[in-house]
Amino acid sequence: MKIAKIHITLKEGVLDPQGKAVQGSLHSLGFPSVEDVRVGKYIEIKLAEEDNAEKQVEDMCNKLLANPVVENYSYTIEEVVTQ
Amino acid sequence: MKIAKIHITLKEGVLDPQGKAVQGSLHSLGFPSVEDVRVGKYIEIKLAEEDNAEKQVEDMCNKLLANPVVENYSYTIEEVVTQ
Repeated sequence: MKIAKIHITLKEGVLDPQGKAVQGSLHSLGFPSVEDVRVGKYIEIKLAEEDNAEKQVEDMCNKLLANPVVENYSYTIEEVVTQ
Repeated sequence: MKIAKIHITLKEGVLDPQGKAVQGSLHSLGFPSVEDVRVGKYIEIKLAEEDNAEKQVEDMCNKLLANPVVENYSYTIEEVVTQ
């Protein structure tokens, strides 16, 4: 089995209203040192054993998980060894 | 300046309806090898230079960013060197 760990983040320069809201809340809560907040997604996908896991994960990101117009994605694929 | 990279994930055993929805969509799109999907959050916070960044980030997670009842969090803090 493999686990794909995918990070989806907004591209530089794209406005992040959710991040701004979190930043505002953190200031209110007494964390004035917070200068910027960006909120993205973190997705873990368990894959049955396959040869072309990388290609598959890339397809998934492009077709469903990320919006390539405003988002970047990166991923790592880890082999799960069960004993 | 420091950047805190925070991962927030649902605890094991907590139902993830969003993940199940993504899994269903991936199956429909022709990815039958997907066995499980968990969706979490990935947050990047820029912090002004502070000594106690770790303590601060932990406080932020406990007070606002994560729900400790159903979510786990982990973080790394990186120093940003500008030249």
